[in-house]
Amino acid sequence: MTAVALAVDVGGTKLEAALVRDDGSVVDGTRSRRPTGPDATFASMRAAIDEVVAHALAGLPTDAALLGAGVGSAGPIDREQGTIIPVNMPGARGFDLRGAVRESASAVTGTDVPTVFAHDGGCLALAESWLGATQGAATSLSIVVSTGVGGGFVIDGRYMPGASGNAGHLGQVHATPELTVEQVASGPASVAWARTQGWTGAAGEDLARDAKAGDPIARAAIERSARTVGLALGDASTLVDLEVVAIGGGFSRVSDDYVELVQAALAETAQHAYSRGTRVVRSGLGDEGPLIGAAALILR
Amino acid sequence: MTAVALAVDVGGTKLEAALVRDDGSVVDGTRSRRPTGPDATFASMRAAIDEVVAHALAGLPTDAALLGAGVGSAGPIDREQGTIIPVNMPGARGFDLRGAVRESASAVTGTDVPTVFAHDGGCLALAESWLGATQGAATSLSIVVSTGVGGGFVIDGRYMPGASGNAGHLGQVHATPELTVEQVASGPASVAWARTQGWTGAAGEDLARDAKAGDPIARAAIERSARTVGLALGDASTLVDLEVVAIGGGFSRVSDDYVELVQAALAETAQHAYSRGTRVVRSGLGDEGPLIGAAALILR
Repeated sequence: MTAVALAVDVGGTKLEAALVRDDGSVVDGTRSRRPTGPDATFASMRAAIDEVVAHALAGLPTDAALLGAGVGSAGPIDREQGTIIPVNMPGARGFDLRGAVRESASAVTGTDVPTVFAHDGGCLALAESWLGATQGAATSLSIVVSTGVGGGFVIDGRYMPGASGNAGHLGQVHATPELTVEQVASGPASVAWARTQGWTGAAGEDLARDAKAGDPIARAAIERSARTVGLALGDASTLVDLEVVAIGGGFSRVSDDYVELVQAALAETAQHAYSRGTRVVRSGLGDEGPLIGAAALILR
Repeated sequence: MTAVALAVDVGGTKLEAALVRDDGSVVDGTRSRRPTGPDATFASMRAAIDEVVAHALAGLPTDAALLGAGVGSAGPIDREQGTIIPVNMPGARGFDLRGAVRESASAVTGTDVPTVFAHDGGCLALAESWLGATQGAATSLSIVVSTGVGGGFVIDGRYMPGASGNAGHLGQVHATPELTVEQVASGPASVAWARTQGWTGAAGEDLARDAKAGDPIARAAIERSARTVGLALGDASTLVDLEVVAIGGGFSRVSDDYVELVQAALAETAQHAYSRGTRVVRSGLGDEGPLIGAAALILR
């Protein structure tokens, strides 16, 4: 028998589900997604969950055992209650995501499906530790730098949820007394800053192209983002004492040397030898890290 | 048989040892201290360790069983090697503190004494969780605000050492891109800042007295420290997701409302509901928290 988990990943623009085997591979034909978005309601969330869960479970191989469901969501969450508290989906705040997945999967299978719930940053960290760039490190932080900035911790080889399931929200740590890391270093924030300096592009892809072509403002915007992330990671390691940090997400690919720029800023600004020595590496997984990590909540 | 541990606590100005029972009480007559200081060497450290360890073990009750030795030290440390890397005692950097305590205690008792080593901030956090202000909280941070600023974490009821044993160095996190929390908010930093504003006192005690008497600069220095600590703690909770933070240390007693000022700054600046909800409380232990916590490394 192959052990599999139902994995569900919920974000601000879409939710998706799939069956994942205990080697981290996705069972062919089980993956599907539905849009979420700012107008999401309890009813629209539940309908979308029912659809992707039914689709995934329809592909359960006859020789496979379903061990349970792992559910990750964009934060903040309330891990004890099983609910989501999304900033950008006001109509879905308080939705019992864990309960919805459990009910939906149990209805399809005719048996109670044990369901584990976590912040998507924590799922990402678990996936990187299992199959990605932080394998072998006892203590790591995995983050994305994209439209937002966030991540999760693996401590002593285990996912660290924190008191309410929200550990890893690096993007909402202050970069200055006035602005957060995300407000300075995300893709949209970097684009907005470059425009205040006279650059006329519109998106992260434009920044990438123009920096590569030698535009000094585009390059400065990238360096500003990396420096801000590097200083924040150095502080995170001074506070939590990390062996390695993995960075993924669309904006982390804005330049070939983004991860190296982050590493240099960390080494320059971190205040202790142990935190200056934290390694910064590129994510070992594609953008499906959180989905695979949701499965890891069950399989690991 | 009463279970006891040998507890050793090493700081930049003194080291001390005592026997501690498994209810957290110190065995009468076993406590002693020796000065350390910036001129400390491997030889002076070893001689001081031998003296306080011999003194403590001479008081071992006949009906007590010695379970081991717990050793805490000002950071940074190298927990794996058992060594200290003190910023202010250059001649003691690399000293094998764990090995010295183990050898010394084993020589006195004639049997191998198991020895566990940690950062003093981690010991403080353990002690607060065991007998102090964070009892019952699964996830907490305990700090001191004094000549320095630092602390340690208890996560899921257990001490969290981090990769090299240094988790909890809040004082070396940046308060601004240029200055650390300690450089803004410690007692000496607050005194220095008040003097730049025209205040003429010399020490934290003067700030306390003058603020109480209505001096606006002294009061502003206290509020500046508390605000800086509160913002840093809000960020720490956004990142690590903490239920409660305990604050002790000499400068935290500079005003009756210092802890309330910190709580207010945290609630104002933390970026998520879960981190704004972190409770800030006064330490439940006196200044012997790190010594009791060193014993807890063995007894808990």
